[in-house]
Amino acid sequence: MTELSDLQAIISNAVDQLSYPEYPNGLYEPISYILSIGGKRMRPALLLMACELFGGDINKALSPALAIEVFHNFTLMHDDIMDNAPLRRGKTTVHERWNKNVAILSGDVMLIEGYKLMMKVEDHLLRQILDIFNNTAVGVCEGQQIDMEFETRSVVNIEEYINMIRLKTAVVLGGALKIGALIGGASQIDADLLSNFGEQLGIAFQLQDDILDVYGDPEKFGKQVGGDIISNKKTYLLIKALELAEGEQATELSTFLNAANLDNETKVAGVTNIYNSLDIRQQSETAMQAYADKAFEALEKINLPIEHKQYLQDFADGLLVREN
Amino acid sequence: MTELSDLQAIISNAVDQLSYPEYPNGLYEPISYILSIGGKRMRPALLLMACELFGGDINKALSPALAIEVFHNFTLMHDDIMDNAPLRRGKTTVHERWNKNVAILSGDVMLIEGYKLMMKVEDHLLRQILDIFNNTAVGVCEGQQIDMEFETRSVVNIEEYINMIRLKTAVVLGGALKIGALIGGASQIDADLLSNFGEQLGIAFQLQDDILDVYGDPEKFGKQVGGDIISNKKTYLLIKALELAEGEQATELSTFLNAANLDNETKVAGVTNIYNSLDIRQQSETAMQAYADKAFEALEKINLPIEHKQYLQDFADGLLVREN
Repeated sequence: MTELSDLQAIISNAVDQLSYPEYPNGLYEPISYILSIGGKRMRPALLLMACELFGGDINKALSPALAIEVFHNFTLMHDDIMDNAPLRRGKTTVHERWNKNVAILSGDVMLIEGYKLMMKVEDHLLRQILDIFNNTAVGVCEGQQIDMEFETRSVVNIEEYINMIRLKTAVVLGGALKIGALIGGASQIDADLLSNFGEQLGIAFQLQDDILDVYGDPEKFGKQVGGDIISNKKTYLLIKALELAEGEQATELSTFLNAANLDNETKVAGVTNIYNSLDIRQQSETAMQAYADKAFEALEKINLPIEHKQYLQDFADGLLVREN
Repeated sequence: MTELSDLQAIISNAVDQLSYPEYPNGLYEPISYILSIGGKRMRPALLLMACELFGGDINKALSPALAIEVFHNFTLMHDDIMDNAPLRRGKTTVHERWNKNVAILSGDVMLIEGYKLMMKVEDHLLRQILDIFNNTAVGVCEGQQIDMEFETRSVVNIEEYINMIRLKTAVVLGGALKIGALIGGASQIDADLLSNFGEQLGIAFQLQDDILDVYGDPEKFGKQVGGDIISNKKTYLLIKALELAEGEQATELSTFLNAANLDNETKVAGVTNIYNSLDIRQQSETAMQAYADKAFEALEKINLPIEHKQYLQDFADGLLVREN
């Protein structure tokens, strides 16, 4: 098995080789730009990994892997408009560097270019793989819509939240793994199991992200600790706390959420205190572990040599204990 | 052969039958909304027509025809954001009725839904038809980008203009006809010829639109006569006039284009006068006729029964003399 870091490097090189027409430059330059500013290339690397796990030639999976990366960057380009984000991976976003119209239209073309790359599979897989891609793409859009709706809703429950992160983050991992597996020659059953592994792991990973935002080591986490608390983001932790807090504590939590002139440090400390006394961290970790366990259950059932299962297990372990 | 108006009615009924998930409503309601506000359903009707011309069953072409209509409405939803348009077919545009984020994301899903519908063809046609759809879709985006760039450019030449209207308007007619022809059982050669017929006719139609904007009968044209002149839109007529005007006339034309406080009536009358003295109408009609002739040349070469060619000829004649 090729090391994950080598698969990521293969993708990075292939992304660098992608070229688009010169004209109209205003349409294609933003595509090259957003693809050039990096990212970990995790999704396409997973697609290659899945192909290789089942004994396939990763060269046959390279174009579909690029399709996943181009598609992912299309969603980033459009999401950044919707979120009014000035920066992406430390670089100016497309709608800021050019303008919103450019970001809309270049994004549209990226989605189409994603289909063009995804179609570079053998005929007998074409329909099946495009069906997966369609479902993945629709899921990601649904997830983004539900996420935006959460911002203006007062109450969101845990089930709705898990469904949102499943759609917005996890289905694309499941989809990438399933496509790679099929190209690698996996049976339908094994491809579905691997997809399920990826989806459950994706949910666990997102829950870990929520936990680390509050409890992570600031030096290792790479984001501002408490950022979600400052922006009142409806994470697993906040939703759970809103569910569990009663009486005085509920009032206090509500005060923190609605206070206009509170300094960030006080707010983060105050909300974290409430989380602590409600045991939110442990409950979130339990939930995270439950999704990880579901992922491992799916993994267990896949018909693969033990060392390939170990590879996936190691990958999952690496993903879920980035730091603590 | 089924009458064109009956084909349009078949499409309208089928569009009414399209249904989307209930949740998330904010994503899917705008899709049903924009599809419900009508339009002539000309593009999908042409796809059905092409299928029937070659002896195919139009039921087999219905989903791909709907794909073309959903795709077309996706472009309208996104174009309306970019053009800041408050109304579409007399109804509030999606980004006005909801907001821009909704219009971006619902549009994205429409593009994906277009692919899902387009995939409802027999396996042996799947790759070929999706290739055509991809090229059509990219072409339309390129056309929109070039059109937007024209707004801020001082000089545009005729060749660039024709290329822009070809991409923005004509390729989708060509693409729809080609897809329909292939579903109907046409040979590759005949499908290409019919596509070419549609593309050239589309260019002629757009040139006619430019002419009618200035010289059309206001009662029949259905738009404000001189609208393009008022907005300084770079039409075939204006580009040609800017090319031909010299000396005093060039100065006068430039004054009209740059005057800030000119009333519309004076501007329309003044620019039309310049067009008249430069013989712009006749030159534009000659150009239009040249593209129509190219369309008829392609038509001539298609291997079809004489009465089916006559049907296409009648269709083209009807399109190109809507009024004068």
